[in-house]
Amino acid sequence: MNTQYQDACNGIITDAMRIAAGKENVDPEFVREKVAAGCAVICSNPRHKALDPVVVGNDFSTKINANIGRSPNSSSNKQEIEKMQHSINAGADFLMDLSVGLNLSETRLALLEHCSVPFGTVPIYEALSRVDGDSDKLSKELLVAVILTQAEEGVDFMTLHAGVLKEFVPLAVKRKMGICSRGGAIMADWMMSKNAQNPLYTAWDEILEICAKYDVTVSLGDGLRPGCLADASDEAQFAELDVLGELVQRCRKAGVQVMVEGPGHVPFDQIKMNMEKEQEICDGAPFYVLGPVVIDVAPGYDHITAAIGATAAATYGASLLCYVTPAEHLGLPDEKDVVEGVIAFKIAAHAADVAKGIPGARDIDDQMAEARIAFDWKKQFELAITGDKAEEIYKSKLPECEREVEQHHCSMCGKDFCAVRKTLEVKDRLDNN
Amino acid sequence: MNTQYQDACNGIITDAMRIAAGKENVDPEFVREKVAAGCAVICSNPRHKALDPVVVGNDFSTKINANIGRSPNSSSNKQEIEKMQHSINAGADFLMDLSVGLNLSETRLALLEHCSVPFGTVPIYEALSRVDGDSDKLSKELLVAVILTQAEEGVDFMTLHAGVLKEFVPLAVKRKMGICSRGGAIMADWMMSKNAQNPLYTAWDEILEICAKYDVTVSLGDGLRPGCLADASDEAQFAELDVLGELVQRCRKAGVQVMVEGPGHVPFDQIKMNMEKEQEICDGAPFYVLGPVVIDVAPGYDHITAAIGATAAATYGASLLCYVTPAEHLGLPDEKDVVEGVIAFKIAAHAADVAKGIPGARDIDDQMAEARIAFDWKKQFELAITGDKAEEIYKSKLPECEREVEQHHCSMCGKDFCAVRKTLEVKDRLDNN
Repeated sequence: MNTQYQDACNGIITDAMRIAAGKENVDPEFVREKVAAGCAVICSNPRHKALDPVVVGNDFSTKINANIGRSPNSSSNKQEIEKMQHSINAGADFLMDLSVGLNLSETRLALLEHCSVPFGTVPIYEALSRVDGDSDKLSKELLVAVILTQAEEGVDFMTLHAGVLKEFVPLAVKRKMGICSRGGAIMADWMMSKNAQNPLYTAWDEILEICAKYDVTVSLGDGLRPGCLADASDEAQFAELDVLGELVQRCRKAGVQVMVEGPGHVPFDQIKMNMEKEQEICDGAPFYVLGPVVIDVAPGYDHITAAIGATAAATYGASLLCYVTPAEHLGLPDEKDVVEGVIAFKIAAHAADVAKGIPGARDIDDQMAEARIAFDWKKQFELAITGDKAEEIYKSKLPECEREVEQHHCSMCGKDFCAVRKTLEVKDRLDNN
Repeated sequence: MNTQYQDACNGIITDAMRIAAGKENVDPEFVREKVAAGCAVICSNPRHKALDPVVVGNDFSTKINANIGRSPNSSSNKQEIEKMQHSINAGADFLMDLSVGLNLSETRLALLEHCSVPFGTVPIYEALSRVDGDSDKLSKELLVAVILTQAEEGVDFMTLHAGVLKEFVPLAVKRKMGICSRGGAIMADWMMSKNAQNPLYTAWDEILEICAKYDVTVSLGDGLRPGCLADASDEAQFAELDVLGELVQRCRKAGVQVMVEGPGHVPFDQIKMNMEKEQEICDGAPFYVLGPVVIDVAPGYDHITAAIGATAAATYGASLLCYVTPAEHLGLPDEKDVVEGVIAFKIAAHAADVAKGIPGARDIDDQMAEARIAFDWKKQFELAITGDKAEEIYKSKLPECEREVEQHHCSMCGKDFCAVRKTLEVKDRLDNN
């Protein structure tokens, strides 16, 4: 079996490319070209039977990822399956299972069976879970074994923190927030305790063989991403990025699809530079960013701080946005948090698609404007990212007697002060002159 | 009595400048210079006794405005006073009373008595209210009389849609969303029904005399702002902007402080251009933007679409951000909506201040990072824009038995997988080597 990348390089248009192209309303050949160039990936492990393939890359509509997963303290498989369904219903294009704890295969297989979107994991979490959280007991062999198991089970993409080299750890721990990436911190702990190089890095060729065999897309983790504004764009972050650039080339040589993960906490004015730098160093590989959050002082509202950063990130080059929920920095998100996170990121992704000029992206906004000037409230709720919520707000603010009929105004200005009504009157006046 | 602008031009540092400078942690002379240059305003009608003055301009921290106000259909004075108090408690720096209906002076005086922040109005709303919403009965004399009354009552700044000229109306009504500004639509309707030029424009000198006498800051309304993405940056919008540039100069000649209002609905990639264009055409007058919302399809979540646009707007030159609430496009905001709007805009303003490099802006974020790595949850909640909400989320997600003690982890990763804990362990290991 070939990977999507290998087929693309051989000039073959696969079924997955055709399906993905249909969703983007582009020619399948265009998808093939971008996959062959490494500027797009189709995360699709053939063993993930429930998958409906999509393409991710800067030339296509921006996708969003929802993270779910148990923590050792809380949640259950049932709750996670519900979170997954809520995420996908709300519009998540990708899903990552970040569970830690016991019996992870069970959770994963239950999720994969019903998951229609690309499904990702962070194998180091399972490796550490298997040794009860004791990083001294981690080994390269265990890590590779976990990657193989997960590939066999049908995982479409895996976050591998292979760029966190031993020599970068001192740079990272001296920062204000040190290492905020769970995977990055585990790798650093392991390397320091064993006084050894990153096992993902030393076993890279072996790992790529597995990824090539199962067409697992590598998502190069940014284990040294900044965890606060003060640490953004620093030496540790960019030292790792240079290694990621090297690993991108090694993935491609091995026929493996690859994307690159990015920060994190980044001031708004540094986002463009970060996106451009990644595109250059990683030779156009799709950039998958977490947020970025643009301030540090809004816990409880970090879905908003992150949606701001994500809009800029996607406008300037990111292809996949990892959502952030209102629970970020505070605890494990529940179903409600997950949905709020997805909605904020649907907004960011769409705003970026309009800004980037993705063909057809603005059509739905134009339809909304037409529905607004026609006072077609039903249509407005149909077109809205969250129509139910919009309808609920609209109705709740009208006097009860007005809720059942189609009003040509809302409660904001009332009838006599409605700008849209007045516009239509002015238009009539002009048309009749 | 002189206006702040006249005093600044005469080299006088007023009490208001001194108080405003204290809040910004800058030299009062710097405030005076910026006010004299017209790049900053201090909206402070001496009759507004409860006012605590602030300075607005691109060189100072970004301010946010909350709109409140009755509509003819709903709300009461009591509710509006509560909305005002909630807005100010949540962090609004400015307040506008957009009430329409009967007895507006009563609402306004009740609000002004307790309002510690600059207080603005849109006089055309009261003018139209006084003639029962019948724009045929509006007159220039009535408008001027309303402006005088409001100035005497202590209003600090007034939105005047003086740039909507008669000749621009055909450009505006042919757009997808026509005229979405309430004030703009009223002016257009009036001009078309009377076949006359904009009365605010023709009475401009008379209006400026009132504004100079009471030091009312003119906020030049953007009556032709785009109401959907498709209408952004179009001929109608920029025709009006050119007139606003001319009116800025006339304000300054009359000794009147002036700021300029801006869009509206603008795709993310057009925001920078819009900010730069205004700064140029309006000779650096503070830019006061509404949103801008960056997509049209998120009713119910337009506080988020607008916070995204507002961050970019303030980063690229806007000084004052008019909030948008989740009720935008759907109905009159209630207290809860108002607070959510203020919070989203506090985030945008702070993100922009960090991005612009306002001195000291990032200090609080650095303190937050320090509290995070120290697991000082109490301090984190103190520093947060909304600490109560953050604390509530944090606690709700921990098992009950863990809530009362100071945990060195949260429920996101649990103890064994906490990146911050691991960072501290790695640091210890390095320090001990």
